[in-house]
This record gives sequence, structure tokens and C-alpha cells, in this order.
Amino acid sequence: MSELAERSGTPVPTIKYYLREGLLPPGEAAGATRSRYVAAHVDRLRLIRALVEVAGLRLDQVRDILAAIDDSTDRAHAIGAAHRLLSPAPPHPPTTAAQSRVAALLSERGWLPEPTSSHAVALAAALDRLDAAGLTLSETALAEYADAAGRIASTDLAGVGGTAAAATAHAVVGTLLVEPVLLALRRLAQEDLARRRLGD
Amino acid sequence: MSELAERSGTPVPTIKYYLREGLLPPGEAAGATRSRYVAAHVDRLRLIRALVEVAGLRLDQVRDILAAIDDSTDRAHAIGAAHRLLSPAPPHPPTTAAQSRVAALLSERGWLPEPTSSHAVALAAALDRLDAAGLTLSETALAEYADAAGRIASTDLAGVGGTAAAATAHAVVGTLLVEPVLLALRRLAQEDLARRRLGD
Repeated sequence: MSELAERSGTPVPTIKYYLREGLLPPGEAAGATRSRYVAAHVDRLRLIRALVEVAGLRLDQVRDILAAIDDSTDRAHAIGAAHRLLSPAPPHPPTTAAQSRVAALLSERGWLPEPTSSHAVALAAALDRLDAAGLTLSETALAEYADAAGRIASTDLAGVGGTAAAATAHAVVGTLLVEPVLLALRRLAQEDLARRRLGD
Repeated sequence: MSELAERSGTPVPTIKYYLREGLLPPGEAAGATRSRYVAAHVDRLRLIRALVEVAGLRLDQVRDILAAIDDSTDRAHAIGAAHRLLSPAPPHPPTTAAQSRVAALLSERGWLPEPTSSHAVALAAALDRLDAAGLTLSETALAEYADAAGRIASTDLAGVGGTAAAATAHAVVGTLLVEPVLLALRRLAQEDLARRRLGD
């Protein structure tokens, strides 16, 4: 276990806690006081830590995501199930107008998310908030953002391969961990453009 | 004031609170118990509410951003100042390797953010977290993300015009309010791609 702690960068008491909570499968017995851990344990530990420390998820949510990954043989379905847990319902349901706008966008692009996609609801709620702030997004801007999002998603999924569990873990953690990269890049690009175009 | 409350969708007690706190300038006196409010008051109220409700900022942070907007005649500088307040320093300083990687990226693209840009630090910290999770971003992926961020920033700034204060308010609030739109679009695109490419 001390070797597992070293290789995963996780303290032994934390590993014991995850074992007790059933988040980490036990190692194969290799004597009275020793267990054998394999590379899958290291991967699983990294995944748990990323979900807790980066995504800020509670342990019960981490357990749900791990269950979706473990139970699924269909990678696309597992990614959808995990994403749903990461996009909670907005405090107010979106307006019918915003929902129609999102439905039209998905239909135009031939995007086929899960019928109950929480992201479609989150998108409609975000459009409502822009309207409320007097900053309604034009159809042109929304289409350009959707184009950019499509390219980003292609990059996201380019590296996904391997077993269903590994691919799903990669996609889920990658989605979360890459978000701050994208937001920082956008702000850097904005500041540069603002300086060039607007600097007085 | 009741008209202002109605037009801005903000309750009267909240408006009085913002007036007392100096976030909202007083209206022009129009009699003993009446004040005249103009369109700028409605805009300012919408901006304050967006910063509080969407960005989740504290009132002292909102005051700092409003001061940057009001004090600035240089729109690019005001945008940079406001953004810095929105990107707090990461809990751990990024590694030298990640900082060099970010410096190389900025230099290759000719991106010229403020020398002390908090976004460059945030980007380096985000790259470190990916490394720690065993999901190091390839140079290809980072370049593709930067391309997409550049296109998004062009869309962001396309609608920015008018006075320095209006342009800055638009850019700052737009940055924050559009983030959930982009993240939701990315997840929708991911789910669609995952279903098409990986669905078993």
C-alpha cells in the first residue's frame, strides 16, 4: 500500500478511507498483511482525486460516477450518465422561449444528446440569464460559439480510446480538468484582442 | 423608484441597499420625495445583479469592478483590470515547467496579455492539474484549444462598442455570462460525438 501511495501521490490514510468507502476495490491478497495493487488502482485513485479536488464533488457523487463508469459497457452512455451528475438542474426552470431556441439549435446541427440532457437545460437557463442582463446573444454569436464548441469536443475526444472504463474516465475527467484551460485561454485571447482593437 | 424597480426587475429594498452602499449613483432630485432615474441606472442595476447572481461576487468585489469601469477611459485596460479580479490566484503557484509552456504558447501566438495576467497563471495551474491526473495535454490539443479560444474571443468582442463604460461592462459581464453557454455547448457536442463515434 505504501508503494500505491507513492505512485498515486495519495496519502495512505486517504487510500484506506477510499477502500472502506468502497470507492477503491481491494487489492489481491498477497500474504497476511500485504495486498497486491495493480495499475488500475493507480488510475482509479487519480480519477477519484481529480473528481474530489478539481470538480469539487462530494463522495456520494463520486461513487455515482464510478458506478456509471463500472456498470457501463457502452462508453457513450457512460459519458452521458457521468455528465448528467456534473450538470445539476438550474434553480429556476428555463423559459419556453429559451428551450425552443436550444431545441432549434440542436436540430439544425443534428446534435443528438440524450433526450433528458441536463446540458440542454443548462444552456437554456444560461441564455435566459443573458437576456435578463440585457445581453441577448444574437443567432450569429450563438452559432459561432456552437462551431467552436464542436471543434473543442473533437479535440477532447481525439485522445479517447482503450477500454470503456478507461475511455469514460478520460472523457469525464478531461471535460472537467480542461474547462479551466479553455476559460483561461479565452480570457487571454480576449485581453489580447481588446488591447489590439480597443486600446485607446 | 418603483418604475426603476419594475424596469430593472430589482426589488425596491435591493435598490435602496445599492444606493446606500454607493454601488448605484443617486437619481436626479425631482421634488421632495421623487428622484429621476435614467437608462444608465437600469444598465447599472442589471450589471450589479449579474455580477452578484451570476458571477457570485461579493459586494466589495463588485465595487472594485465598477470602479475599474468608471475610472477607465481605456477600454482594454478596464477589461484587464476587471478580469484580474475575476481570476483569483490558484492555491499553489504553478510549476516552472507549466509557466514556461504558457509563456511559449503566448509568444508563438503573439498574444500580449498584461504582463501580470492572472489568466496566464490560472492556465499554468490548470495544465499542472492535468499532469497530476495523468492526463497531460498534448501540444496539438493545446494549440487546437487556443485556436478555438481565439475564435470565441472574436465573437465575444464583435458586439462591443459604444462608450468605454458600456463596452467594458458588456465585455466583463459577457465573459461571465457566456461561460456557462460555452461549457454547456461543449458537453452537448461531446455527447453527440461520443454517441456517433463510440456508441457500441
